[in-house]
Amino acid sequence: MIVGKVAGTVVSTRKCENLIGYKLLLIEPYYGSKEKIFVAADTLGAGIGELVLITTNDTTQYGLDRNSPIDALVVGILDFEPEIGK
Amino acid sequence: MIVGKVAGTVVSTRKCENLIGYKLLLIEPYYGSKEKIFVAADTLGAGIGELVLITTNDTTQYGLDRNSPIDALVVGILDFEPEIGK
Amino acid sequence: MIVGKVAGTVVSTRKCENLIGYKLLLIEPYYGSKEKIFVAADTLGAGIGELVLITTNDTTQYGLDRNSPIDALVVGILDFEPEIGK
Amino acid sequence: MIVGKVAGTVVSTRKCENLIGYKLLLIEPYYGSKEKIFVAADTLGAGIGELVLITTNDTTQYGLDRNSPIDALVVGILDFEPEIGK
Amino acid sequence: MIVGKVAGTVVSTRKCENLIGYKLLLIEPYYGSKEKIFVAADTLGAGIGELVLITTNDTTQYGLDRNSPIDALVVGILDFEPEIGK
Repeated sequence: MIVGKVAGTVVSTRKCENLIGYKLLLIEPYYGSKEKIFVAADTLGAGIGELVLITTNDTTQYGLDRNSPIDALVVGILDFEPEIGK
Repeated sequence: MIVGKVAGTVVSTRKCENLIGYKLLLIEPYYGSKEKIFVAADTLGAGIGELVLITTNDTTQYGLDRNSPIDALVVGILDFEPEIGK
Repeated sequence: MIVGKVAGTVVSTRKCENLIGYKLLLIEPYYGSKEKIFVAADTLGAGIGELVLITTNDTTQYGLDRNSPIDALVVGILDFEPEIGK
Repeated sequence: MIVGKVAGTVVSTRKCENLIGYKLLLIEPYYGSKEKIFVAADTLGAGIGELVLITTNDTTQYGLDRNSPIDALVVGILDFEPEIGK
Repeated sequence: MIVGKVAGTVVSTRKCENLIGYKLLLIEPYYGSKEKIFVAADTLGAGIGELVLITTNDTTQYGLDRNSPIDALVVGILDFEPEIGK
């Protein structure tokens, strides 16, 4: 999974029916290249600036109530910044 | 999901039967390296220059009417440019 | 999907049974880093130098007659070189 | 699969139900760019500093007791550092 | 699929039950960045220095006798070095 920081939201009125109801968050990767911002769906209520854990590809479906065309999903909100070696 | 800008279309007459009927868009990534243009199928009617949200790999199938060999699908058209921190 | 140019073929006599019968093409990416050549299976009869559209990962299975351990499949041959903005 | 070194843990109290019970490890890639740290679930009891083998994407599910939104899973602990050519 | 050179083996005694019985090979990519060594399972008996064809992610399952947490599998041994343009 990827550690990311919630950097904003995206708004889409014209979208697939199966996407309706999900909050769509801009995610800045916490490790590696920070420019590679992507979008993850969220059902946990993560706020801007929070660090989250994101799963990708088809494994997102096991965290959803119904199958949806979503390849990145927030599956956890981190309690504190991860520290290497602890 | 990936935020991309619709940069053109591709035309293919000799193709898999399961691809018939989908519009095939050239997509320029909005974040990260802009040279890594790829192709996404579209059923929402996105136009050139519009910003779209794209899901990838097998999750595309949950946005299609039938299974198709498509690993990138436009699942939303953004209402406005995303802004970091909002 | 990825736009690529057919750059050659690979020959493998000792291989998985499920791979028998597919032509295996060397593909040079058309966008991004051209050194990242990969192999795609082909059932459309693409020739060397042709531009093709390739789908990846598990979505390849929707373009095949039977399930096969193939993570890249030619799903279309482009009619002409894609042009940005058209 | 990826060879990685266990570099720490992440703690998440607010998370998907299906993630409960898994230890979440920070993994530093052993080959390639070491900055691209990611998170893998672990059921084998790997400790900090150990070298592990990680499978990704939907194949993680074949190493789990139940389907979970996990795209990286420790599937082995290496007996010793891998050596090229042996 | 990826063309790679068999560069060694990895040994793991503590591993997922579903991994037992597979040989685990270190693979050096033949194209692109050679430092990004990864591990593939092998059932064809590829030897060190041989060039092999590797499929990834969930498509590995179609080359296995049973589902296993394996995201890279040797599906062919190349008869000779691939040549661009042939």
